[in-house]
Amino acid sequence: MQATQKIGIIAGGGTLPDLLANHCQKEGIPFYVVVFKGQPKPEGLDSYHIHSTELALGQVGKVVDTFKEKQVTHVVMAGNLEKPSLFDLRLDMPGLKLINQVRRKHDDEILSTICTFLEKEGFVVMGAHELAPEIIMPKGLLGKVKPSEAQLSDIAIGLEALEHISALDIGQSIIVKDGVVLGVEAVEGTTKLIERCATLRGGKNKGGILIKAAKKGQNLKVDMPTIGDQTLERLAELKFDGLAVLSGKSLFIGQEESLKIANKNGLFVCGVDENGQYA
Amino acid sequence: MQATQKIGIIAGGGTLPDLLANHCQKEGIPFYVVVFKGQPKPEGLDSYHIHSTELALGQVGKVVDTFKEKQVTHVVMAGNLEKPSLFDLRLDMPGLKLINQVRRKHDDEILSTICTFLEKEGFVVMGAHELAPEIIMPKGLLGKVKPSEAQLSDIAIGLEALEHISALDIGQSIIVKDGVVLGVEAVEGTTKLIERCATLRGGKNKGGILIKAAKKGQNLKVDMPTIGDQTLERLAELKFDGLAVLSGKSLFIGQEESLKIANKNGLFVCGVDENGQYA
Repeated sequence: MQATQKIGIIAGGGTLPDLLANHCQKEGIPFYVVVFKGQPKPEGLDSYHIHSTELALGQVGKVVDTFKEKQVTHVVMAGNLEKPSLFDLRLDMPGLKLINQVRRKHDDEILSTICTFLEKEGFVVMGAHELAPEIIMPKGLLGKVKPSEAQLSDIAIGLEALEHISALDIGQSIIVKDGVVLGVEAVEGTTKLIERCATLRGGKNKGGILIKAAKKGQNLKVDMPTIGDQTLERLAELKFDGLAVLSGKSLFIGQEESLKIANKNGLFVCGVDENGQYA
Repeated sequence: MQATQKIGIIAGGGTLPDLLANHCQKEGIPFYVVVFKGQPKPEGLDSYHIHSTELALGQVGKVVDTFKEKQVTHVVMAGNLEKPSLFDLRLDMPGLKLINQVRRKHDDEILSTICTFLEKEGFVVMGAHELAPEIIMPKGLLGKVKPSEAQLSDIAIGLEALEHISALDIGQSIIVKDGVVLGVEAVEGTTKLIERCATLRGGKNKGGILIKAAKKGQNLKVDMPTIGDQTLERLAELKFDGLAVLSGKSLFIGQEESLKIANKNGLFVCGVDENGQYA
């Protein structure tokens, strides 16, 4: 990053926006954050409150105006926005124009459309991992627990299923146990998928693996699959076996804390390639 | 059906086993019903109680022995068994052998394996619709309410998504609203899918369409996608817009009652072809 650049962070919930803001503060890179009303707020927002504005999610025009006014040059989208709120959008004119350009209100299409729009407005759109490359999911066995042969087979089943599903921009997470696809994520989000699948294992049964991978054609600049300590905590609480994430194309936030949780609870964590291999 | 034939009904929950038993009683065809412990029981079971035995789900050998003892010649599988209970199975030896033949514990593979096993044991396996053809989902607009152009587009999106997903034997139902796939059914079942998606529409929003289609390679003899008045009731209660089901390859049970519910609540019901067309 050059000193003449200023980062605009379009921030949803979770720790990623905070991580990027801290990164900027540490490196002395100027930044400005936009958060949204009625949406999850990034953690640590208070610490850079003077650098932020709260807008309605549909106020696409105002996001641009705000960033221009603050002389932002580069834009990063980070954190979770709640997708169902799509149905609650109050769009301004630029927002309406944008949304009418997409037939299916899919994440990918919407985000890519927003991306193109921001670039036309003169901003450089950056991936969170371009600003802070250390957050990319590495390949390998990351914790102390190793998956069994049967679990590796479940990972392969999950990845194959995700590949089919991903072409449709439905979801990027799936839970498999003993060869059975317990659940597929769509709009509900990963946490609700985990909670739902916990009840589908029969009696007092435990186990099952969360598998997460980028969708085909997913715009990795603006929307990478993300896991962090909250995912691990929920998996541990509900006695799942482990987590496999497609490496290189996913973000792993709070790795140290996450792996502590995993090791303590006997969960495996691996960054895998497209064939489900971690080594 | 010839008079020398006797129907064995492997019965789960819902009204289908009862419908078949009644069909047999009316036509004077002898029948015998097997139900399972800890599983949903068919409605009206009491009325033919003397013709039934309750077994554990894993007692595959006992199902065969029971049917042979009762001189059953033709076997029909009907009604819902709870899939998660797969993890609670207490298998006898024939059951263990069967389950070990399938790599993925997918419905399709399990059911086809059971089918082959029953055929090897000398039974003729019949589809419920072969015994009672009037229960097949017809093509056409079945109720009074017509889907809009936008809703037809959502139906097409749902069918396309199901086609991709179906190759993996994950699920046969999906809910789409305004171009967004709200949810995909896996192990949880259609009712839970409906309930979950109702909460994902944002604020007080209503609407959304349930789309249901047979999976690729689904063994239609033993496992047809099924809808009935319970599905319609839940959709109506939760203010969905309608239901589209792939015609010819699905069962529509309790059509009269279902369409009454649909018409009263402004829900459309259509049997569609693979392109989502009902006319």
